[in-house]
Amino acid sequence: MTASDSSDSSAETRVAIMEATFRALSKHGYSELRMRDIGQELDVSRSLIHYHYEGKHDLISALLEYIVDQYEGSVEVTEETDPWSELDRRIDQCLFGPGFDEEFGHWERMRVYHDLFSQAQHNERHQEIFNRHYDRIRGSITQVIERGIEDGIFRAVDAEEMAQLITDSIHVARERKISLGQDEAPEQMRHAIDAFVLSSLVDPESVVTLMKSNRETN
Amino acid sequence: MTASDSSDSSAETRVAIMEATFRALSKHGYSELRMRDIGQELDVSRSLIHYHYEGKHDLISALLEYIVDQYEGSVEVTEETDPWSELDRRIDQCLFGPGFDEEFGHWERMRVYHDLFSQAQHNERHQEIFNRHYDRIRGSITQVIERGIEDGIFRAVDAEEMAQLITDSIHVARERKISLGQDEAPEQMRHAIDAFVLSSLVDPESVVTLMKSNRETN
Repeated sequence: MTASDSSDSSAETRVAIMEATFRALSKHGYSELRMRDIGQELDVSRSLIHYHYEGKHDLISALLEYIVDQYEGSVEVTEETDPWSELDRRIDQCLFGPGFDEEFGHWERMRVYHDLFSQAQHNERHQEIFNRHYDRIRGSITQVIERGIEDGIFRAVDAEEMAQLITDSIHVARERKISLGQDEAPEQMRHAIDAFVLSSLVDPESVVTLMKSNRETN
Repeated sequence: MTASDSSDSSAETRVAIMEATFRALSKHGYSELRMRDIGQELDVSRSLIHYHYEGKHDLISALLEYIVDQYEGSVEVTEETDPWSELDRRIDQCLFGPGFDEEFGHWERMRVYHDLFSQAQHNERHQEIFNRHYDRIRGSITQVIERGIEDGIFRAVDAEEMAQLITDSIHVARERKISLGQDEAPEQMRHAIDAFVLSSLVDPESVVTLMKSNRETN
């Protein structure tokens, strides 16, 4: 076995443990989860769990980082993507989820994510992971808004404030679906973000400026 | 004892039980709470709890309705209040809380509210209460937006869609403070609602219309 084989197989084991933890958490919920439940979901030897992780809380924190990484790495944009398309893609991805190959889809993952989020006030490490994740999502939306402003495509707004509102809106729409069973919430929110938030990026002044210049030349 | 005395004292007992349940829930959390903990917070006889409520779950549902009623009944507006002021008052009330006389303030109540909200997917009765509460908050905001549109003060927007976005924004800002410890979230959100949502109520067309009419009369 070469060094590279060994690290591949170690990475595979971690993924297998993460997916087992995810399945166990989906079945039993956060407060009821026992190490045994995770072991039962795992095909490889249970001793591997103890080799890689310190215990239930360490495992759950690792799972949260694993889910968050999957989301952050999944938006495909290049420098050539125009700001409107990038903004749309980033919003849609967070609201409706990327297409996962795995057995569990976006909403199963989000159910676990929101469950841990609501309990984060009692867990400093989770709170840190969520705060970092929020910062990064808001950061990537801020960047694309700033790029659009620099290119003269968007009206000059407080990019960070708007990015925060968009990030918050995505979060609450997912939560309304999960907690209140309002399945229409994400689609509704997508429309509301267009109608009331992104509309601020279209410059109303440009209409006035156009009329002014027409007037002066007439 | 007259009939009115008796119903007064029954109402007082219910309030005392609700506040005891609230204190016990704040101390022990939802999943750990036992009937005993509620009894220990109560000055009156514990048998009164069993006389009024069927058990722990019935008590917690009643508490949720009690908290929700306190919020819904606490905005003071009359028919003379102009739409901008009413909108501001309703938003501020939900974000920053009414001034309660009781020992526990807005954020202690909201901590319990958001804790129950995140678990509502597992409890049909709670889900119903939250759905009704959301409907009423959104409904009262929809009404004031519609009134402003009818009076020609606001631009014609989809009032219900905007009211939903405002209700959602309030919810998520409170949650970001509670779950992620971001104490600045409600103030930030208040500013963002003004900058990106309520700004849509100001008619940019009116500037254009004004210029057009100036042009025609010149």
